[in-house]
Amino acid sequence: MPIVRLAMAQTNPIVGDISGNLANCLATVREAAANQANLVVFGEMCVAGYPIEDLATSPEFIEAAESAVREFAIALEKDGFGDIAVVIGHPSRASASTWAIAHNSASVLLGGTVLGRYDKHHLPNYSVFDEYRVFVPGNQLFTFEHCGLKFSTLICEDIWQSGGPVAQISNHGTDIALVLNGSPFEVDKGDRRLELVKSLALTQDIAVSYVNLTGGQDDLVFDGDSLFVDSSGELVVRAEQFQTSIDYVDITSKSTAESKNMRAPAVTRSSLEEQVWNALVTGLKDYVAKNGFKSVILGLSGGIDSAVCASIAADAIGAENVFGVLMPSEHSSDHSIGDAVDLAQRIGLNYQTESIKDFVDAFEKQIPLTGLAAENLQARARGLILMSLSNERGHLTLTTGNKTELAVGYSTIYGDSVGGFAPIKDVEKTLVWRLANWRNQHAVAMSHTPPIPQNSIEKPPSAELRPGQVDQDSLPDYETLDALLELYVEKSFGRKQIIDAGFEVETVDRVISLVDRSEWKRRQGAIGPKISPLAFGRDRRFPITNRWTHRKS
Amino acid sequence: MPIVRLAMAQTNPIVGDISGNLANCLATVREAAANQANLVVFGEMCVAGYPIEDLATSPEFIEAAESAVREFAIALEKDGFGDIAVVIGHPSRASASTWAIAHNSASVLLGGTVLGRYDKHHLPNYSVFDEYRVFVPGNQLFTFEHCGLKFSTLICEDIWQSGGPVAQISNHGTDIALVLNGSPFEVDKGDRRLELVKSLALTQDIAVSYVNLTGGQDDLVFDGDSLFVDSSGELVVRAEQFQTSIDYVDITSKSTAESKNMRAPAVTRSSLEEQVWNALVTGLKDYVAKNGFKSVILGLSGGIDSAVCASIAADAIGAENVFGVLMPSEHSSDHSIGDAVDLAQRIGLNYQTESIKDFVDAFEKQIPLTGLAAENLQARARGLILMSLSNERGHLTLTTGNKTELAVGYSTIYGDSVGGFAPIKDVEKTLVWRLANWRNQHAVAMSHTPPIPQNSIEKPPSAELRPGQVDQDSLPDYETLDALLELYVEKSFGRKQIIDAGFEVETVDRVISLVDRSEWKRRQGAIGPKISPLAFGRDRRFPITNRWTHRKS
Repeated sequence: MPIVRLAMAQTNPIVGDISGNLANCLATVREAAANQANLVVFGEMCVAGYPIEDLATSPEFIEAAESAVREFAIALEKDGFGDIAVVIGHPSRASASTWAIAHNSASVLLGGTVLGRYDKHHLPNYSVFDEYRVFVPGNQLFTFEHCGLKFSTLICEDIWQSGGPVAQISNHGTDIALVLNGSPFEVDKGDRRLELVKSLALTQDIAVSYVNLTGGQDDLVFDGDSLFVDSSGELVVRAEQFQTSIDYVDITSKSTAESKNMRAPAVTRSSLEEQVWNALVTGLKDYVAKNGFKSVILGLSGGIDSAVCASIAADAIGAENVFGVLMPSEHSSDHSIGDAVDLAQRIGLNYQTESIKDFVDAFEKQIPLTGLAAENLQARARGLILMSLSNERGHLTLTTGNKTELAVGYSTIYGDSVGGFAPIKDVEKTLVWRLANWRNQHAVAMSHTPPIPQNSIEKPPSAELRPGQVDQDSLPDYETLDALLELYVEKSFGRKQIIDAGFEVETVDRVISLVDRSEWKRRQGAIGPKISPLAFGRDRRFPITNRWTHRKS
Repeated sequence: MPIVRLAMAQTNPIVGDISGNLANCLATVREAAANQANLVVFGEMCVAGYPIEDLATSPEFIEAAESAVREFAIALEKDGFGDIAVVIGHPSRASASTWAIAHNSASVLLGGTVLGRYDKHHLPNYSVFDEYRVFVPGNQLFTFEHCGLKFSTLICEDIWQSGGPVAQISNHGTDIALVLNGSPFEVDKGDRRLELVKSLALTQDIAVSYVNLTGGQDDLVFDGDSLFVDSSGELVVRAEQFQTSIDYVDITSKSTAESKNMRAPAVTRSSLEEQVWNALVTGLKDYVAKNGFKSVILGLSGGIDSAVCASIAADAIGAENVFGVLMPSEHSSDHSIGDAVDLAQRIGLNYQTESIKDFVDAFEKQIPLTGLAAENLQARARGLILMSLSNERGHLTLTTGNKTELAVGYSTIYGDSVGGFAPIKDVEKTLVWRLANWRNQHAVAMSHTPPIPQNSIEKPPSAELRPGQVDQDSLPDYETLDALLELYVEKSFGRKQIIDAGFEVETVDRVISLVDRSEWKRRQGAIGPKISPLAFGRDRRFPITNRWTHRKS
């Protein structure tokens, strides 16, 4: 009775690896064919990886991607898959404009050829996206008939903006919209996608297949979570988050579709902490794998940040590939070392101890330092040890700073900030604690050893760069600080608005000034996975030279 | 006989410093009034500074700028300048869109009020510009009459794109276009601006007043070079580069205008080397001044890069504010120290010597290192010394890497790359030599001591991280390398195109791979002044995770 068996292919492409990505696509089509699918839909730009950024301005790259797609159509036919319609995302050459030379496209392959192509209409150019910079917008809907049903292709942002191709879909007699997406994970975004897709289905009276990418690419993590909603707005299939997968939907008409596995789709996702944890693990795992690393190294201070990073790393690439270094100084407390060793043993990671004392002494004997300069020296001595071991052994260095520290510049540049990847860069301190608690509870639920020492969770945070120092000597308490930063950084509130929201004037002025003055440090920081609506990095582009800092009216 | 005396005000605003910028504007109007001007035109965004980047998404900032402009109009009238038309650039609140909340505007102030406003139509979103990200485009021309002549306002990119407001100007009976610009310096851009302005004058039969900003803002240097061209295409006035200035033009009609000073405008600019040198000096000077530094520190290796940087710094902020550190190791040759001392003495800068030996020995005694890790240790020991002295004394640290090194990753991250500002970041090695020669010849012409030791110019470049090492052990010769990089980086040529241009396959593959693999290091690098059509930084946005590197087809 089913006319179309749709395979929704949630893949994890690597930017630039056209042949590798297409090899994965071929394997996916093969598997889908074995399961009697006659329509396979992939995510946005699955051929090129996503986002390709200024790689889109390379004519050679665009042409390579396009010709690979044509060859892929031929290969599919040769392998006996010519009857299967395959919808695949890739860049394509556009008529020359001043800068952008490519479209962000979806091609429909059938019978050994490219049946047709759709070019993304709405190009997001906000947040982390620069698509108006590198792509030329399309202006035509593409609709095709397959096995008696009518399909229209759309790409990601197209369904987030009213007007454009979405509004034309009903005029084209579309039964099912095939939406190719490269939609990065953000806390709570999954629900907004589901609402959006349901609303699209109902307002246009169509079924909607929403296929997302999965996996990490630099600072973005694609969480999959692909969806199929029928024309009555019913959720038929929801794919797993953070995993490659193929989900099948048998479609008789736009209003009659069912999951092949007949399992009820999970309408609610896992807890926020679990989703964030999985996003961070995915981001790190793929950065390591896609860049050819085998192992990571990080400093273990006994504190919560390095404990959480070590635990993420162990979940991502296995404890045996995680190398911790304890780097005590004369200001390190006994519990720092004890907690770090406890962590290493709970997780089962490799660790070694390298005191920074001799080295710092030799330096200060030659160049005596005071105050902050002396504190920074200790942090930089640790950075030097980590980078030396990284260079000697080929580990990727992880930097363990959290979003709160990054916001107020509470770190030493070229010291604790050294590293190629920052696993909790977009995680504010209060969320770091919640993640630690969640991860430990999760371990208990699985009858495993909780990885993070309770003492690391409970003791007052300290950089231990001078005797008896705790973070709250120089910063507001973290609850207050994170609440204030959410208003200033994520919500772009002004000084007056923040004060009106109930924060002390002095605290507001101090925190705003710290945030603005730290811009130069953030610019030189490692990338790390975005999980919030507004991460530092390309999501927030502020000038370094910026006197607006000093406003007081 | 003149009807309008136009004052073209080339100012150097600071981003975010609304009150300071407007205080400068007031002083400028006062001076112009004393010179009987009745029309004063400023550059793009002179009230807010430029570019303001995501500061444009702060409602508080936009409203502060707008209300400051209204108050400025009132202040002008109160001070007796109500008869002078003042054209000023600033952000203004736009109707809400999803992300951008502001226009990039020009307001005409007259008689104590805002006579009208023009909103930039064409928003550049390529190269270093993200204007489509943060601004809402305008769609109306603004024309006003003053002293019997008709003026229309335009902003920067508007005249670089055909269509839009430029094409409507003749329909509006415009005599003179007042173009407000924030056009950064680029090698040879000045001539393109002049051609463009002439062509606009001739095709639209109007006179054109082109007023640019001057001064450094983070990685951009605005070079002024403001122009007035009459409707016959004749250049009437051309302002100095890299200086604040007011140039006056007496305008009787669109075809009858003359420079008040009656001096013939310099049609040709100074040599490329001189322009670049001035751009680098301006960029550094303003970064230092606008960010509240008083002095800079840098390592002096005896090589050409640090010599050129020290010389730029001395020209920018005075030799007495430049602090050099000689940091010899066991691999340092005698000439390194001799050349560095010679440089310091020629320039008259402060210097001290800090051997890295004891410190490196103490480190290696604890953690023995080999090969590249040992080389990096030396560079990082130097970085640590510079940052420690910077922290202790408040100097801005300069990093002396050039564009060629940055391209191929020939530097140690957290080592020689440490610093807040990179004066020659966008200067390829072969141009560094040309600049050194030019600067020395310039000194001779002025009967000064040439600042740069001839030996630093002539000896083979070496990082001196192991015995007898020279750069060409691991890199192609710099002539070849720079030529290849120009094709790959600046012209976005593909591998095949570069090979077809005559480079050896092996060299091409090696260099491309080095460039792509160094992306993560460049991301963590300091900012520095853009002088080329394509600088590293926000001008070139490539993924770190990028397998396109490994193409071999």
